[in-house]
Amino acid sequence: MDDSEFIDIGFAKIDIGREARTGLPEVVFARGKKTWQVEEAVKTLSEKTGRALATGVRRRMGEKLTDLLPGGEFDALAGLFKLGAKAPAGEPRVAVLTGGTADLPVAEEAAQTLEFFGHPVERVYDVGVAGLNRILGSLDKFRDAEAVIAIAGMDGAMPAVAAGLIKAPIIAVPTSANYGAGANGIAPLLAMLNACAPGVAVVNIDNGFGAAAMALRILD
Amino acid sequence: MDDSEFIDIGFAKIDIGREARTGLPEVVFARGKKTWQVEEAVKTLSEKTGRALATGVRRRMGEKLTDLLPGGEFDALAGLFKLGAKAPAGEPRVAVLTGGTADLPVAEEAAQTLEFFGHPVERVYDVGVAGLNRILGSLDKFRDAEAVIAIAGMDGAMPAVAAGLIKAPIIAVPTSANYGAGANGIAPLLAMLNACAPGVAVVNIDNGFGAAAMALRILD
Amino acid sequence: MDDSEFIDIGFAKIDIGREARTGLPEVVFARGKKTWQVEEAVKTLSEKTGRALATGVRRRMGEKLTDLLPGGEFDALAGLFKLGAKAPAGEPRVAVLTGGTADLPVAEEAAQTLEFFGHPVERVYDVGVAGLNRILGSLDKFRDAEAVIAIAGMDGAMPAVAAGLIKAPIIAVPTSANYGAGANGIAPLLAMLNACAPGVAVVNIDNGFGAAAMALRILD
Amino acid sequence: MDDSEFIDIGFAKIDIGREARTGLPEVVFARGKKTWQVEEAVKTLSEKTGRALATGVRRRMGEKLTDLLPGGEFDALAGLFKLGAKAPAGEPRVAVLTGGTADLPVAEEAAQTLEFFGHPVERVYDVGVAGLNRILGSLDKFRDAEAVIAIAGMDGAMPAVAAGLIKAPIIAVPTSANYGAGANGIAPLLAMLNACAPGVAVVNIDNGFGAAAMALRILD
Amino acid sequence: MDDSEFIDIGFAKIDIGREARTGLPEVVFARGKKTWQVEEAVKTLSEKTGRALATGVRRRMGEKLTDLLPGGEFDALAGLFKLGAKAPAGEPRVAVLTGGTADLPVAEEAAQTLEFFGHPVERVYDVGVAGLNRILGSLDKFRDAEAVIAIAGMDGAMPAVAAGLIKAPIIAVPTSANYGAGANGIAPLLAMLNACAPGVAVVNIDNGFGAAAMALRILD
Amino acid sequence: MDDSEFIDIGFAKIDIGREARTGLPEVVFARGKKTWQVEEAVKTLSEKTGRALATGVRRRMGEKLTDLLPGGEFDALAGLFKLGAKAPAGEPRVAVLTGGTADLPVAEEAAQTLEFFGHPVERVYDVGVAGLNRILGSLDKFRDAEAVIAIAGMDGAMPAVAAGLIKAPIIAVPTSANYGAGANGIAPLLAMLNACAPGVAVVNIDNGFGAAAMALRILD
Amino acid sequence: MDDSEFIDIGFAKIDIGREARTGLPEVVFARGKKTWQVEEAVKTLSEKTGRALATGVRRRMGEKLTDLLPGGEFDALAGLFKLGAKAPAGEPRVAVLTGGTADLPVAEEAAQTLEFFGHPVERVYDVGVAGLNRILGSLDKFRDAEAVIAIAGMDGAMPAVAAGLIKAPIIAVPTSANYGAGANGIAPLLAMLNACAPGVAVVNIDNGFGAAAMALRILD
Amino acid sequence: MDDSEFIDIGFAKIDIGREARTGLPEVVFARGKKTWQVEEAVKTLSEKTGRALATGVRRRMGEKLTDLLPGGEFDALAGLFKLGAKAPAGEPRVAVLTGGTADLPVAEEAAQTLEFFGHPVERVYDVGVAGLNRILGSLDKFRDAEAVIAIAGMDGAMPAVAAGLIKAPIIAVPTSANYGAGANGIAPLLAMLNACAPGVAVVNIDNGFGAAAMALRILD
Repeated sequence: MDDSEFIDIGFAKIDIGREARTGLPEVVFARGKKTWQVEEAVKTLSEKTGRALATGVRRRMGEKLTDLLPGGEFDALAGLFKLGAKAPAGEPRVAVLTGGTADLPVAEEAAQTLEFFGHPVERVYDVGVAGLNRILGSLDKFRDAEAVIAIAGMDGAMPAVAAGLIKAPIIAVPTSANYGAGANGIAPLLAMLNACAPGVAVVNIDNGFGAAAMALRILD
Repeated sequence: MDDSEFIDIGFAKIDIGREARTGLPEVVFARGKKTWQVEEAVKTLSEKTGRALATGVRRRMGEKLTDLLPGGEFDALAGLFKLGAKAPAGEPRVAVLTGGTADLPVAEEAAQTLEFFGHPVERVYDVGVAGLNRILGSLDKFRDAEAVIAIAGMDGAMPAVAAGLIKAPIIAVPTSANYGAGANGIAPLLAMLNACAPGVAVVNIDNGFGAAAMALRILD
Repeated sequence: MDDSEFIDIGFAKIDIGREARTGLPEVVFARGKKTWQVEEAVKTLSEKTGRALATGVRRRMGEKLTDLLPGGEFDALAGLFKLGAKAPAGEPRVAVLTGGTADLPVAEEAAQTLEFFGHPVERVYDVGVAGLNRILGSLDKFRDAEAVIAIAGMDGAMPAVAAGLIKAPIIAVPTSANYGAGANGIAPLLAMLNACAPGVAVVNIDNGFGAAAMALRILD
Repeated sequence: MDDSEFIDIGFAKIDIGREARTGLPEVVFARGKKTWQVEEAVKTLSEKTGRALATGVRRRMGEKLTDLLPGGEFDALAGLFKLGAKAPAGEPRVAVLTGGTADLPVAEEAAQTLEFFGHPVERVYDVGVAGLNRILGSLDKFRDAEAVIAIAGMDGAMPAVAAGLIKAPIIAVPTSANYGAGANGIAPLLAMLNACAPGVAVVNIDNGFGAAAMALRILD
Repeated sequence: MDDSEFIDIGFAKIDIGREARTGLPEVVFARGKKTWQVEEAVKTLSEKTGRALATGVRRRMGEKLTDLLPGGEFDALAGLFKLGAKAPAGEPRVAVLTGGTADLPVAEEAAQTLEFFGHPVERVYDVGVAGLNRILGSLDKFRDAEAVIAIAGMDGAMPAVAAGLIKAPIIAVPTSANYGAGANGIAPLLAMLNACAPGVAVVNIDNGFGAAAMALRILD
Repeated sequence: MDDSEFIDIGFAKIDIGREARTGLPEVVFARGKKTWQVEEAVKTLSEKTGRALATGVRRRMGEKLTDLLPGGEFDALAGLFKLGAKAPAGEPRVAVLTGGTADLPVAEEAAQTLEFFGHPVERVYDVGVAGLNRILGSLDKFRDAEAVIAIAGMDGAMPAVAAGLIKAPIIAVPTSANYGAGANGIAPLLAMLNACAPGVAVVNIDNGFGAAAMALRILD
Repeated sequence: MDDSEFIDIGFAKIDIGREARTGLPEVVFARGKKTWQVEEAVKTLSEKTGRALATGVRRRMGEKLTDLLPGGEFDALAGLFKLGAKAPAGEPRVAVLTGGTADLPVAEEAAQTLEFFGHPVERVYDVGVAGLNRILGSLDKFRDAEAVIAIAGMDGAMPAVAAGLIKAPIIAVPTSANYGAGANGIAPLLAMLNACAPGVAVVNIDNGFGAAAMALRILD
Repeated sequence: MDDSEFIDIGFAKIDIGREARTGLPEVVFARGKKTWQVEEAVKTLSEKTGRALATGVRRRMGEKLTDLLPGGEFDALAGLFKLGAKAPAGEPRVAVLTGGTADLPVAEEAAQTLEFFGHPVERVYDVGVAGLNRILGSLDKFRDAEAVIAIAGMDGAMPAVAAGLIKAPIIAVPTSANYGAGANGIAPLLAMLNACAPGVAVVNIDNGFGAAAMALRILD
């Protein structure tokens, strides 16, 4: 297959060559698309590459896609629709940490994306810095990971703390789980960009999928 | 003395009643004032209340004031000019923490303001979260403080960590010691306002004096 | 009880040691959580510490929790669910001031949090600076408080005025009760951070609970 | 004279008809202009309309203009160069209030602009809200003004307080005399736009001339 | 009546002395208040001062108030509830200009507030600068006004153009009638603060009432 | 027809002379207007100029207008209501490019506006830079256009890439099809303003009509 | 010459194929570069393409370049260094308008860039909207231009006014010639993006060169 | 050595255990520190860990340090002072790309940090998207890297383009090499966070060292 090949389906140009070029096949971002557009894109991708993942899928669209695309699976918490997932195998090489419970949707988007592409995940949830005992008491679970996805809203302090404790690259994800000044994730985004411990890089607010994609490139 | 009394010196109205009303005498903020204006305000305050403090004093003005006002003392790091300081007495009731070395000018403004009004201070510097060992290893120094002034730039994470470890009210001060997005202290300001541990209140960026004033009200 | 103890309930790690470390038990922030998650967290906390408070509870969740957790009490204005509240005792040591009527939900979140932990509160509502007569005419009610929580939207001017009148530390809370430029509380937040009277520290927009937590640390 | 007349002097088109149309002749804003350009514009205006005012004049340019244009007068504090000023006459109809000493340059720009066009001014300086006694004790000086120019940096609270005390329209001017979040005058600008007392309108940060122009239109 | 008098109705302190002090009685801002609170405030004001105005009233609340308060009148476009309006009398002394049709709700809030207090208004709508012919062709309607309220969204250019054409003070009101960058009125707000013609002062976005209050102070 | 003529229909002044002055007749922006207002404006324009276009029309209003105005046509994707459209004729001289599928509504607003005024359009959709093969593989379709409208959300990178490949002026349109920091189109807006290839000018976020208007002026 | 050819000179890759691809040769942006880097880039470009233009050249660098590169010409006002300029020929097809005198450096950058590539320019300076008489009185000079570059600081209103008067595409350039809120050109940038007259597209603040590049693409 | 060990040198607490915990020894950030503080920190680190690196070193401090610390080496372009650098060995595993020449200081900070810790680097400079030929023509140099540091100012588009071409994780660094809206690196920062190609994570503006630290964690 030519790595610059794409299929024109009218409203979109499916980039069939992306996996050969970048290691990761094209993924369908469902926000702002109609159900029939997501369906058609998923079908095209699945036929050409053996599997397809859609992100940002709201409950109603997810249920419709489950009806329309046999074999597909929808996870409402993560907002993911999956067709032809690989089976995760081996020891977890990536840990996903969250600061609090409200970060779960973003964390599951990241974790299940990794699992969809065959990588098991160690989940370490609710280890924000308000009680350091929790992250220090969980250190054994993620000390030897090859990559850590650290997800936090509020003050966004946890990724810097994690970076000071272990050797893996920290992919930080700010979340919009808050109110007041810095709501919508600006406060943790800025905090993570200014993390006082080196070894932290940041993806956009609530972008669990982007963090997983970065981790997949690191693993490969 | 009438607690609504003030003295009109032309360019300013010195609020002589402020100490009776609020517990803290008027303090001269030197930024944006001429040396002769600061001199006259300091002299008026000192004559009426026995002492006077000027903040935000740059080196050149500080040296001139030292010449002009015998008995006065200038600290260049803190930017403070002091006339008639009280002698600090008793055990320290307030601890001043910093995340890093660049926060020292703000920390000294806070600490020396407290000392000027007679309160000794416990300094706990460079205990940012990149190495938790430093703040955890220094816990004995500030665990029993009645108020903690926690000063940090970068990600502003340290005050939240401190709030999760001790019982005292945390007065957080963001500093502008940084570059990039969130420079000028916006990143730590937002992080501190969103501190995930309760018991943190925030003063303006680089406002060491304001933190000391809040601490003085708490002590009294 | 070990002050670093926590209980892992899957989606969360309940920090049982927090009261021993910080003086205040963990509190459940309901925004972004499912009812069953709040229920389980409240139950766990209540069993371990004798009482539990949830903040940010919307009416529907509050009514469900009242059904699910006998002995619990829901206040819709404050958005609080309370289980095992202490009885407030003694003279009020904290005053809660508001600039206007639209600030009431935030004020009640603060006041009832203090009452939940046993501290009676002096309420001084609608004393914004558009009519100084109102705050000057109410001065006797809060002049001798040990801490003042000053809540305002719009121009956020009231806390600075209060700080110029009394000796207590002022915990300022900006509210989002407005429209236009500075809506969502940015205008009063900035005004409070720049308060021209010293002795003011600020918590995040609409954060009545955070103000109460700061006051509790000051009282203790 | 035709009220749409203008004179083309190459780098500028002097709007000779402006006084007939709007009541106020064109004024030269010196910032960003060369000295010879300001000189030429001032000369042209003065010849055609009998007087000319330049604002935003830095010391060096001001001294050069004084040499170049006999009869002209430069005020360094206000940054004004004046040629052919009217003599102020009658009782002051406008009061200029400031919150603090650092607001003086803006206040003098406003006050001397009014005086240049023949209107005496009542100056009421340093009446910020940190000590309400000062503004309440000065009320007699501005209670009966026909327009009040209220200038403040920091929290920008004073204009709202003034609006709650008197009947005149309040022209509020935020100043950039500050540091930290909201520096450069954003904090007082937003506070003034959100003034909780009606009867306040706002001009741009540090724009003392603009406030005077608004006052002149009100007086006429 | 003492001009510092106020009536404490529990959730609010009605400032009965405001009209004596400032020329304008207290007005009820309904946003963020319950219907029964607005009703009680309106009733109290009306009994004490002979009339009452509520602003920011949504349709549903307006209809309820009409039922609850006989003699009251609700205007849905302007969001005003009026009880005991004065009859406008005499020639219009104020003109209200808009840039476009979407600015009408703000314009009517301003115009009807003026009428409620007895001042007839000249309406000059849809005279934005995209077709200068419209504002130039309407000049006779507002050239001799004593105050002009100039309302615009989009680029906010009209008030500056108006200020260059006439002698009255221009009270500029930015509106949020737009989308894209600068939406919510920030673009016209900044443009109006930077108006290149002097004699413009600005109130907050969509604040038609505030503009009317400023005009009332100018007229008196 | 006088090119300064306008028709006053009460809530609006229809600018009949605009086509003569600017080449493009007035167009009705429906957002913030009532259906009857749009209807009346469209009718007036159509009677006077032979055709009328309304933009920003939501589905419900569009269907009502179709009933009310025989011969009119509503396109829900583009949000356009058209009465008296010209027939596009000749070869396409403008190409409309999009980065992704979510940009379609904006693209169709632009493309159909051009078609309404008689200009056929080359559509080149989903050629974002994540797979350069797509834009490089489509180059033949837009290399010889006289103007290119390049529409993108996310990182807004495509217009700069296009500008480096061809000779036509690039009219860049940022879209709000995103989430996280820079949502609402700020990220692509800033990227397009900073395009590293010269020959790019930008219209407001989601402003497909504005891009078409610019293209029409270029073609003429 | 291959249109993808480039020359690697170590610190830069000179894009020799750009003129063939885009119609405009690569231009050297001097800001942030050393003099020897600009010299080498200019020399390489000039040898390969017959001419070279550097923008953003400060006075000192400009004078050095004039020494180093015989035949070169430096314009300090425009910040341009030119080697091998074409002679402008024919009637002016582009008009450059400014709102005020402070916009001249940006205007000259635009105008002289056009002239460097052989296009004469009609300059129409100081026609801001504070006195509409000036722009209306100059209409004959730019009514028939094929493209108009409209440059303004302050409220940025002039380009919208121009767009309502003529048929040419308006390339709007906001300038940073201001102070206060919206300084650095944000106010006119937002105003121009929200221009109420269609047919305006915007380049970055102070980007006179970018406006000229857009105009060159339109002319060709 | 205990991995929580630190050395208290008064103004700082040198974190000797950091290399054991995180793989990277503590590095001295010189901005905001005095020369003697940097000297002492470098000396302490070097004695304990065998080498020391200081970042953000201005020329004057760098020259002093070279005198004070024999064996040290200062690079003015990168702002790095190095003592005890490892010799880079093996094939380059990391590529450093820049969009333009102005990004060189940031690129050299990243590249030389990697070299200091023993990793050779492939430099691919000036491959911004204005001429895609340059990045496509250089693809062989970075296609097989294990990590790519992609540095760009302006529109920040290059990292997304790189991510669409290769398999390595992209560490994106926005630079402040620009002017106008989005200056100081905000435009490329937002663009990179919104990169339309997955596999990009971002460090703070101009933070070349942070990018290198992330790369080092990925390599290990």
